[in-house]
Amino acid sequence: MSKTISIAVDAMGGDNAPKEIVKGAIKAIEEIDNVKVILVGLKDKIEEELSTYQYNKERIEIVNATEIIGFDEAPAMAVKKKKDSSIVVAMKLVKSGDADAFVSAGSTGAILVAGLGYIGRIKGIERTPLAAVMPTLKGPTLLIDCGANVDARPSHLVQFAKMGSLYMENLLGVTNPKVGIVNIGAEEEKGNALVKETFPLLKECDNINFVGSCEARDIPYGEYDVIVCEAFVGNVILKLYEGLAGALLKKIKGGLMSTTLSKIGALMSKKALKNTLKDFDMAVHGGAPLLGLNGLAVKTHGSSTHVEIFNSIKQCVTFVENDTNGKIKELISKEI
Amino acid sequence: MSKTISIAVDAMGGDNAPKEIVKGAIKAIEEIDNVKVILVGLKDKIEEELSTYQYNKERIEIVNATEIIGFDEAPAMAVKKKKDSSIVVAMKLVKSGDADAFVSAGSTGAILVAGLGYIGRIKGIERTPLAAVMPTLKGPTLLIDCGANVDARPSHLVQFAKMGSLYMENLLGVTNPKVGIVNIGAEEEKGNALVKETFPLLKECDNINFVGSCEARDIPYGEYDVIVCEAFVGNVILKLYEGLAGALLKKIKGGLMSTTLSKIGALMSKKALKNTLKDFDMAVHGGAPLLGLNGLAVKTHGSSTHVEIFNSIKQCVTFVENDTNGKIKELISKEI
Repeated sequence: MSKTISIAVDAMGGDNAPKEIVKGAIKAIEEIDNVKVILVGLKDKIEEELSTYQYNKERIEIVNATEIIGFDEAPAMAVKKKKDSSIVVAMKLVKSGDADAFVSAGSTGAILVAGLGYIGRIKGIERTPLAAVMPTLKGPTLLIDCGANVDARPSHLVQFAKMGSLYMENLLGVTNPKVGIVNIGAEEEKGNALVKETFPLLKECDNINFVGSCEARDIPYGEYDVIVCEAFVGNVILKLYEGLAGALLKKIKGGLMSTTLSKIGALMSKKALKNTLKDFDMAVHGGAPLLGLNGLAVKTHGSSTHVEIFNSIKQCVTFVENDTNGKIKELISKEI
Repeated sequence: MSKTISIAVDAMGGDNAPKEIVKGAIKAIEEIDNVKVILVGLKDKIEEELSTYQYNKERIEIVNATEIIGFDEAPAMAVKKKKDSSIVVAMKLVKSGDADAFVSAGSTGAILVAGLGYIGRIKGIERTPLAAVMPTLKGPTLLIDCGANVDARPSHLVQFAKMGSLYMENLLGVTNPKVGIVNIGAEEEKGNALVKETFPLLKECDNINFVGSCEARDIPYGEYDVIVCEAFVGNVILKLYEGLAGALLKKIKGGLMSTTLSKIGALMSKKALKNTLKDFDMAVHGGAPLLGLNGLAVKTHGSSTHVEIFNSIKQCVTFVENDTNGKIKELISKEI
């Protein structure tokens, strides 16, 4: 059997904690051979949830953390004050090597601050972007940075492109991933100041497959494997993707339920429709990894259910098994 | 009968010119009492198209223009060189007062450059944003700036909010329109440098109804009437909206056609579905007006059919009838 990989999971993070988090952890040890899950949070609550399952006690550990950082708290202050919060305690486990990676559905800001503060950046990495795997008509695309640090500089975007390419190659098996930069036109001279400065730098990189500008309308069609952008723009893309898909499906459901005839029709098409739309499900590909840290922290959606938690744990295992961070270090060390 | 309003229409602009443009013009004079359409472009081509219709010859005029600006041409250079292009000739008609407004499905860049060069800005207006009316679950929302000038300053966004509010009040009859600023979190301290600087300025404005940050995921749900943002971000939103809606509908169609049972179901639900999705059709609300000019120029989608052309003409008529520009001038004059 391959080496056991330990994943610290924030049992208190997100809207469905701890119930769905614990359920996801149970699913993980049932379905992934070499994983051990460390549930971090209020011991009593976690034990209460775990008591409803039959499971291998050696593969789930509880590490007590008495505080919780809420979504409404200022991240820097919360991380500083709540030293015994599930996020901080879990990050310390990654730092000490007791955990190989960390998954949380909690506050993105707090994960970023604690990740930088406790785990720290890989030497040579200027910024640690949040990368999200988004569904498209042709399979998953990595959007990087989708929300970690706004107002990026060109050199940051270049590093994002490199780390994103490694991620897609190692985690999703994409050969020679096509890299695009979010732009408002296809030509090199289009764009804002940041894009105009970054474009030639990306063109010069010989260790990525840069294919040029990516207009937002093309993203859902999946022509790019890695899409780099500044975090404000990336966050807008990620959230609009989510919001619009949700709104359209709501509208379509409304349409299908509006007449008796359409209701019967809907019943007949339901299964086929569900199967097709599964490919467009954000939950399938796990959470958004914070890349460039001396360790791995994955942020999953605040409303994550056990499905997202399970997929995020799986994603961490693949990341560690493929030594993705080792490869990032190697690539970046060539530059410094 | 009310005063006749003359709309110059670029007969050569867009993928379906001149056929669909002429069809849209015919529909306009049939359905709008007081409109006269001036078709600008290659006279022979326009006459050839018009010859297939029976129509009131007094209400459609042709103004010859021998050149066409293509989508692939650098806008500033094209506008400078092609003085007899349909876009330049039509802009001159607006400048001279022979036309009250201009509609084009041609190059956005050329429309912007020619608009500024020939019509010019309203005194006191710092920048002329492109505003797009987007469909949401609760009706139309105005996104401003969706692509005219990247890297805006805070004072620009404040003017966008004011012009956008007037537009929604006058064109779409929205009372006290709710204004939001695109942001990556709900709180005032969130955002990039631009948003953080603009937020307090918007809060201070007493002639708009500023309600705070608007996260991209909320846009499709229609909680805001006017959404202000920098043009790079706005263009990304507009194009992603369009691309994702298209990709999802394609996916859904694929799902509905995947089994025999689902095909029959689809046939039964088709009409109801189509009726509901109509509300989400970008074409309904016309094109994107370039606000802040001493006149009106409306850009419609490059792939516009007669429907978009007709709706854009209708939109221009309402704009002129309500003296929207007069109201913008009045509002801005208070500041300078």
